[in-house]
Parts: sequence; C-alpha cells; structure tokens
Amino acid sequence: MWDWLKHLITGAPLPTKQIAHKQLNKIRALATFSPDALSSIGYANQEVYLGLVAAGSIGLVQSVPMALVITMLMAIVAISYYQTVHAYPSGGGSYAVTKENLGAFPGLLSAAALLIDYLLTAAVSLTAGLAAISSAFPQLWPHRVGLSLLILAAITLLNLRGLRETGSAMMIPVYLFLLAFLSMLAYGTSIVLIDGPASFSATALPAAQPLTLFLMLHTFATGCTALTGIEAISNGVPAFRPPKSKNAGQTLIVMAILMGVLFLGSIGLTQLLAVVPNPQETILSALTRRLLGNGTAYLIIQASTMLILAVAANTSFAGFPRLAAILAADGYLPRQLKNLGDRLVFANGILLLAVGTGVLIVSFGGDTHALIPLFAVGVFLAFTLSQIGMVVHWLRNRGKGWRLKATTNGVGALATGVTLIVIGVNKFVEGAWIIVVLIPMLLFGFCKVYNHYQEADKQLSLGELPGQLTEPFPTRVVVPVAGVNRGMVDAINYARAISKNVTAVYVELEPGTGEHVRRDWERRWPDVPLVILPSPYRSIVAPFLEFLDRIDEQYNDGQLAAVVLPEWIPAKWWQSLLHNQTARLIRSALLYRRRDLGFQRVIIDVPYHLRR
Amino acid sequence: MWDWLKHLITGAPLPTKQIAHKQLNKIRALATFSPDALSSIGYANQEVYLGLVAAGSIGLVQSVPMALVITMLMAIVAISYYQTVHAYPSGGGSYAVTKENLGAFPGLLSAAALLIDYLLTAAVSLTAGLAAISSAFPQLWPHRVGLSLLILAAITLLNLRGLRETGSAMMIPVYLFLLAFLSMLAYGTSIVLIDGPASFSATALPAAQPLTLFLMLHTFATGCTALTGIEAISNGVPAFRPPKSKNAGQTLIVMAILMGVLFLGSIGLTQLLAVVPNPQETILSALTRRLLGNGTAYLIIQASTMLILAVAANTSFAGFPRLAAILAADGYLPRQLKNLGDRLVFANGILLLAVGTGVLIVSFGGDTHALIPLFAVGVFLAFTLSQIGMVVHWLRNRGKGWRLKATTNGVGALATGVTLIVIGVNKFVEGAWIIVVLIPMLLFGFCKVYNHYQEADKQLSLGELPGQLTEPFPTRVVVPVAGVNRGMVDAINYARAISKNVTAVYVELEPGTGEHVRRDWERRWPDVPLVILPSPYRSIVAPFLEFLDRIDEQYNDGQLAAVVLPEWIPAKWWQSLLHNQTARLIRSALLYRRRDLGFQRVIIDVPYHLRR
Repeated sequence: MWDWLKHLITGAPLPTKQIAHKQLNKIRALATFSPDALSSIGYANQEVYLGLVAAGSIGLVQSVPMALVITMLMAIVAISYYQTVHAYPSGGGSYAVTKENLGAFPGLLSAAALLIDYLLTAAVSLTAGLAAISSAFPQLWPHRVGLSLLILAAITLLNLRGLRETGSAMMIPVYLFLLAFLSMLAYGTSIVLIDGPASFSATALPAAQPLTLFLMLHTFATGCTALTGIEAISNGVPAFRPPKSKNAGQTLIVMAILMGVLFLGSIGLTQLLAVVPNPQETILSALTRRLLGNGTAYLIIQASTMLILAVAANTSFAGFPRLAAILAADGYLPRQLKNLGDRLVFANGILLLAVGTGVLIVSFGGDTHALIPLFAVGVFLAFTLSQIGMVVHWLRNRGKGWRLKATTNGVGALATGVTLIVIGVNKFVEGAWIIVVLIPMLLFGFCKVYNHYQEADKQLSLGELPGQLTEPFPTRVVVPVAGVNRGMVDAINYARAISKNVTAVYVELEPGTGEHVRRDWERRWPDVPLVILPSPYRSIVAPFLEFLDRIDEQYNDGQLAAVVLPEWIPAKWWQSLLHNQTARLIRSALLYRRRDLGFQRVIIDVPYHLRR
Repeated sequence: MWDWLKHLITGAPLPTKQIAHKQLNKIRALATFSPDALSSIGYANQEVYLGLVAAGSIGLVQSVPMALVITMLMAIVAISYYQTVHAYPSGGGSYAVTKENLGAFPGLLSAAALLIDYLLTAAVSLTAGLAAISSAFPQLWPHRVGLSLLILAAITLLNLRGLRETGSAMMIPVYLFLLAFLSMLAYGTSIVLIDGPASFSATALPAAQPLTLFLMLHTFATGCTALTGIEAISNGVPAFRPPKSKNAGQTLIVMAILMGVLFLGSIGLTQLLAVVPNPQETILSALTRRLLGNGTAYLIIQASTMLILAVAANTSFAGFPRLAAILAADGYLPRQLKNLGDRLVFANGILLLAVGTGVLIVSFGGDTHALIPLFAVGVFLAFTLSQIGMVVHWLRNRGKGWRLKATTNGVGALATGVTLIVIGVNKFVEGAWIIVVLIPMLLFGFCKVYNHYQEADKQLSLGELPGQLTEPFPTRVVVPVAGVNRGMVDAINYARAISKNVTAVYVELEPGTGEHVRRDWERRWPDVPLVILPSPYRSIVAPFLEFLDRIDEQYNDGQLAAVVLPEWIPAKWWQSLLHNQTARLIRSALLYRRRDLGFQRVIIDVPYHLRR
C-alpha cells in the first residue's frame, strides 16, 4: 500500500544502469548553469534601491556608481573562476578546491558555507519570485508564504521524480527571460537617447537619513548578492562537451557579460528614467511598468522573472543533494545522504533541503529583504576560500604564467575577502550573526559525525581476531510466556529444536494468576520447566531482565541465555493498537541493554500471524 | 534517563498492594461527589440568561418560572437516582444499570454517552471557570484558551501522580463555595425583603426577537445543564461507610436540595434585583457585583466559583478512566486502558481524557456557550437509559412496593426522555448533531474492538492441538551480511551453533563490490557458503526476501529458513541516525510478511554493541 502510494507520487523505481552522463553543448550548458546567476537581478536591484532610497533622491543618484563597483567585482570574480575552470577540469567546486589546497578544515568551512548558501538560494529565489508576480497581482501578496511553499512543494516533487536540470524544458524560461529583458533594456536605452534622462530630484523623495559612507557600505553589502550563482559553471565542468575547460570557460565569460549587462543596464535605466516604485512593488517591476505600461508586455516580463527565479531555486535542488552526498561519502554527513533513491536521485538530500527551505520561508515571513543579510555572508565566504585555494594551487603547481594567474586569483580573493568583511560587519545585527553562529555548529556536527564513523570502523574491523569458530557451543534458551495459547506453541517448539536447556517464564501481574497458568502448562509441556515471577510494580520487563541476569549467574558458563519471543501479529495494522506491545518492549530492552561482556544476548522472534 | 524523567514528573512507582479502598463519611462523600453537580450553576445560569435575554426584559421576566421547571425536573431525577442507590449498592452507574436491565447494546449506548459526557464536563467546567475569573479580571479573557489548557495540564499531572479525589484537600473548595454562595444568597434575600424587588422593565433592554415557545424551549434545553453531575453518587455507593445505601441516599438528597437552592436562589435574586451583566461578564458575576460591590467579597465568590469548577473538571479524571477501564475489561476498548500505571492510576485513560479535553477547548475557542449544546445531549441520553433500566429492574424484581418504585423511575425516564428530545431538536444545528454523529461512531468502534478480541481469542486457543513436539527438527539458517566486520562474527558463530546448514548472503548494491567481499569472506569462513545477490534497483530487502523464498522452495523440506540478523548498536542514540537501519528494515519486512503456511519465519537478532 505504502509502496504503491510512493510509486504513484514519485514514479516507478529505475535500475542503477540507467544513470546517464549527458554532455552539454554551450547553449544548453548556459541554460543549465546560469539561472541562479542571471536571476540575481530579481533581488540585487531591489537591495540597491532599498539601501539608497533611505537617503532620498541624493542617495538614488548613487545607484549607477554603486552598480559599477559591483559589476567590477563581478568581473574580477568571473576572471578568477575562469582560471579555476581551466585548472580543475574535473569540477572545481569550492569544497574540492579549498580542501585540496588549504586542507580538510577550510574545506569543511567552505562546505558549510555552501550548504547554507544553497538553502538560502532556494528560499530567496522563491520569495523574490513571489514578489515579482505580486507586483503584477498585489492581491497575491498576503498569501506569499503559502504560495512560496506551494511552489517549493512542486519543485521538491519534480526533483524526487528525477527532474533533470539539463532537460530541454529548463531552457525555455532562461532564454525567454534573456530575450524579454535584453529587448526591454534596448528599448529603454532608445527612449533615454530620444527623450534625454530624467532626474530623481523631480520626484523629490524625502531623505530619511544623510548619504553617509556607512549607508553606502550597507547598500554595497547587500547589492553584492548580484554575484550569487557565478560559481555554478566551475562545479559543472565535467558536464560540458570536450574540450571541456575551453567550452566551460567561454560559457562562463558569456554568462558574466550577460549578468553585467542585465544588472548595470537595469539599474542604469532605473536611474536615467528616475523610476520610483509604488509600495509593495519591486523596483524591477516599476522600471518595467514605466517602459512598457501595464499590458501584456509587462506581464510577460514579470512572469519570466518569476519563472527564472523558480528555475534558480531548482538549481539548489541539484547542488545541495550532490554536495551533501560528497560530504557523506567523505564521512562528514550521515550515510543516508549518499543513498540513491528509487529514481536515481539523492532523495534524502532533496527532502532535507525542502524542509530547511520551508522553515526559512516561514520563519522570515516570505520576505526576501529579511533573508538577504544571511545570504551574502555564506556566498562570499565560499568565494574567498575558493580563491585563496586557487592562489595556493598556483604557488604549488608553477605552470606557464603562474605568477599572473596567482596574482589574478589573489586579487579575486582580496576583493571577495574585503567584501565578506564589509558584509559581515554591516549586516551582523540584521541577520548575518545567524550564519556566524550556524557555521561553527555545522563544523562541530561534521566533526562529531566523522569521529563516530572512524570510531565505528575501528571497532568493527576484524584485525587479528580469528574468524573461525572452533566448535559449536550449546545454547541456553528462556521463553517469556503470557499464558498457554496458540501464539507460543511455535516458539516453544523452536526453542526445543535449537537447545536442550529451555525455561519458560511467566510474569505474574495479578497475584494468583500464576498457579492457573502452571496447571495448563504442565498438562501441555511437562518437560519444560515454568518459572513464575512476582511483579509488585506491575512491570513485565524489569522482573524478566532480573531473572535473566540471575540464571546466567547461576549457570556461570560464560554465556548468556538466548531469549525466544513468541510474538503474535494481528491481521490489520490498527489491531496492534489494541494490544500491549510486550514482545516489542522486551526486545528493545534486550537489544539496547549494554553489557560488559563481549557477546551480547541473542533475541529470537517466533511470529504467529492471526488470520482476521 | 527517560525513566528518571518520568519518575521526577509522576513520582516513584507504587507497589500493587498499596491499592486502598477508603470508606467515606457523609461530609467527605458530599465533597467528593458533588462538585460537578453544585458547580453547574457556573454555566446553567448563564445559559438561562443568554437564552431569555434575546427577548429583552419581557424574556428575562421568565427566568424564575424557567428555573422552577428545571428545579422540578431536578427533583424528579434526584428521586429516581435515590431508588437506584438503594437498588444497586455495588454502584449503579448508567452503564452497569443499562447493561444489566436492557442488554449489551443499550449499555454501550449509555457508555458512549457517558464517555462523551465526561469529556465535556471537563471542557465546560474549565472554560466556565476561566469565564468566572475573567469576569473579575477582564484582561485574562483573551488568554482563556491558553489558561484553560494550563489548568488542564496541572490537573492531568496531579492525576497521573495519583491524586485522590477523596483527599481532604479537595473538601476545601467545595465547602468554601457552599459557604460563600449560601451566605450571599441569604444576604441578597434580606436586601430584597427590605428594599423590595426591582424590575427588568426599568433597565429597558431591547428585544431582538419576540418571546416565543421556541425561544422558551431553546432556553430550557440548555438550562437543563443545571442537572449535570446529579448521577455521581449513584456510581460511588461502594465508597460510602455502611450502611452504604442509606448514607448514599441521604447524601444524594442533601446534594439535590443544595443544587436546587443554589440554582433557584441565584436566578431568583437575579430577577428580583433586575441584574444585567456587562459585556464579557457572567450573569453570576453581575449578581455578585450587584450584591457585594467590587471588593474582596466579590473576589472570594469568583475565586471559589473557579475553584469548584476546576474540582468538577477533576471529577471527570476519576470517572472517565474508571469507565474506560471497565469497558476495556469487557473487551470494548483497547486493553491498555485497564493497565494500572506506576502510580496505581489508569494512566492511559487519564492521558486520553486530557488530550480529548484539550482538543475540545481549542476547537471551541474556550467558549462555554458553544460547548453547551453538545453537553446536554449526552447527559440526558445517559439519564434516560439509566431510568428505563431501573423500570425494567423493578418489573423483573417485584420487591416491596415495586409498583410505586417503577412508576417513580418511569416518570423520571419520561421527564428526562422528553427533555432529551427537546434538547436534540432545539440544539441540533448548534452542535448536538456532533454527538448524534459521534455516538454511532463510538458504538461502531466498540464493536470492531470487541470482535477483534473475540476473534483473536478464538485463533489463539489451543483447542485439541497437541502441545508437545515429538522430536526436534533440524533448522536451516540464512545470515545477511554487509561485508566482513566485527559486527557479524557473533552472528555467524551463533548461526553455526544452532544449525549445520548456514548460508551467508551479500546484497550487491554497487556492481563489483561482491567479489571483494567474497575474497575476504573465504579467508575467514571457508566452510560457510556466501551467496552474492545483484540488486538492480538498489534495494537490500527485496532481493533478500526473494532469495529466502527461492531456497525454501529448493530444499522443499516443509520448513522455512531462520534468518540470523547481525545488528550492531551504536553507543549513543543520535549515532543511529547516521546509519542505514538495514537490520531493522529486514526484521520488519520478515515479521509482518504473511504466509499461508502455519509456521512463520523465525528471526534471530544477534546484537553487537559499539563502545563509543
């Protein structure tokens, strides 16, 4: 029944040999790896606006300079990753690069940052997507949490069924988004050229505070979320067609240029047209409305923004489970995360990400702006560690032009490192502290898990232990019985089949019932001794365990008596609710009771099934 | 750890021999059995007021006539139960009387009504208690649900620890309540005698609807909740000192007179003083405030009302678990309900009642008035069935004066039966339908449970089956292994100790790993054959179960191979989260798999404990 339901939801299981490694051409690869990066304008623009508008018109005039600085940073990071793509053709994710060059601990730091980053990408993309569509349909705004969770559930389900991020269907939203936005930017540019620029001073926005360096740094700290997703191609080099590194590098450059054009273009137009949004509308929506009015064209832009943000959330569903599986394989996360599910996906990782994202969306009330301070820290921590790793890589492997390459990555590391500090300091109170607390907790968890697996492996290794048993030893058996009934006949018979030393035990909950049972018993099994135990506190388990210890001591043969448990199983699941689960209680008590002896107590279940 | 926590909360376990049967004198018995009945004015007055105020001043003038009718009904029911007390000195609960005289099915109907009644008594008493105290402190009103649940939790905890409803501490609230209310009524009467009565026409309340027969019946239907709890003494006759029936009967008469005086007195004064409450204040609070002002005397009255209502809720915690245990002993409810817990109380019944009451309070938003329509139906159904049962009792056992006695109970049955119909019809839409739906569901549940126990007993009976095994049979054993490690050495050794026919099985999740395991294996256990099973769908359980079936078929010796499960247990509970629970999965699959053969597959757990 449960299997049937599971297959209905996620589809029939797939055999292992169906794992396919598709190789992507550049067009398809761009669609696969860029949604997270390109969709960043869905929230980064908004952050720049929200940061500067505090200083009114005087602040908003700084939008373009701010965007130029961020775009420069973007270029530096892109060039750094271009080198990573060539140095690690087998995939240079932050975790791999950092671990190889800087050691296990920085690698784990990077991994922790990345895991959090994936979670936040999913949460931020979903809530920003809802903000985009709510700008067009304000009546959706009050339901943003519910709707975000609905889309999250749909994405989770598709991924559990084995949605391939490399599928052709995923290309449509990406190229639709590019076509729509690039056309709009071109149209907007022509309008500015014809009509000349407008000025924010005309809109006369009141300034809540002066334009300080603090305010600029604050805005920069969140505007940097425009860079998120830029590292995706460096993780995915093996998926490209050969020559892999060359193709990946070219795709990375194209993607970075598109990111820059979209970010700088949209912010530039916003400033040149002096666009100001209505309440509960995104700045991107306001720009679109200013250029295209409220008609179909506007709706297409908003819908394509929401779609690419949903696809960006989906990329987390590819990245998170894969990284979790790698960490699990290295022994830092529970092993279950590397199990391939029925549909050849890391189902446990997908579910973990879905739950985490859901919790984030609900806790932050579906508000992108509240999530952003958490987001930027993890991203730039991973950037910085990865770039430092690359510097060390070049210093070690001094190939052709290593000095220039090391310097390039060094500049990247410096730029992202400084940005990380700016973000951490400016956004600490607003939420970055959560990440600062969470990352050490994750690292602690990684270590606990790793130590446990190491310790377990050590204890489970055979070493010099002789595997072979010299001669069979006789086994003693104790059978707890609840009276004389059909459910225990098989148990008694089995006990006698494997041992010559069988004792039955009846725990007397109500004084006087024992003698009644003994009379029945001796008629049936005169050769099996029945022991009746009193139980002043009405517990079955405690007197039984005491009895076992007592007779083991009496025999003093270095062995433990095995326990044969007669267990009758009702025909329907709800019927088990109608019975005291005594066999189950005894089994757990025995299974988890720790003894100093090497050999543990053996528990033998002899089930008897009722028919109705 | 868990045991320690449990004992901290509920206290150390008590031995069975400490069950005490205390015998109560009349003063103590009145305090024990009357709180539910006496506290009824905490909500019944309110219902009379809320019903009649719809017709404005013209309606409220009917308060005293209405109260007189209800008090007459009270007298009839009290006399009826007086006869029950004498006829059933061993305790004449509705279930017992109905079952004995009318048969099993009406008995169960009565039991269902009573169980619901207990639940509602607890819920109504708690919410009415909160209403009483919120009348004094209106700022508590918004928190009524949380506070009701808090008091509920406290009562549950006390009962789990084994609070005795017969304890001396319980007498204080009851006699404080009686003293406070009777004094106030006396004082109020003197005021009316001195100042003369006031009139509602002076307060000039607007009428929302005319005073119709419908409105009167509607009010009567909920005002009848004044009678709730009157049956308590008839359940508790065995707790009285001898002569039990005589003492119980006298106590019943005193209680009924007190109920009548409190109900009629408070409603009479309300009308004679033309009291009208503020919004969010109970009518009882308004009367008190009118007579005593806002000072200490007023607070004492409100506090004693809340206290006696809490004690009344507590009586459900004595009655419900006891009735549930009786029904469980008769086979109509799960057996777990008759287990005496560590503290010699029916802990499962207490928890069930607590959860049910909590759900009721939350679902109805802590609003007494919304709960009342559900309450009255169950109470009067149980009254009516019990009275009809008494009539049949007299017809069967024609003792001295049986005609008069049968007539008396007949009048009782008729009066409560008619009331039941009035309530059912008038309050159907407002909530009585819930009970009308719930009772058949409960009856259906009783029957399902009963049939299962009957069927299980039949299938478990030994009948003519020979208990003795003629000769021991050889056992075949299969051991699933996950590789060669310390965790399975004991399992292999045990398997070889009990059988000459041992096969090890390795399920190959990743193609190619099997040969590696085989090499290790053959070095250690050359004499135990290892079978390697492919698993195209990455499942361990399915190929293993198929293999078991296949070899049983091959051997064709009428037996099933036993499965020895090597199971290594981590040292700490959280560490089990880090492992695939393969042994557990295989065990459940084997345990619950149904076979047509009589003998089921035996499962042998050989645990190995890790030390850290």
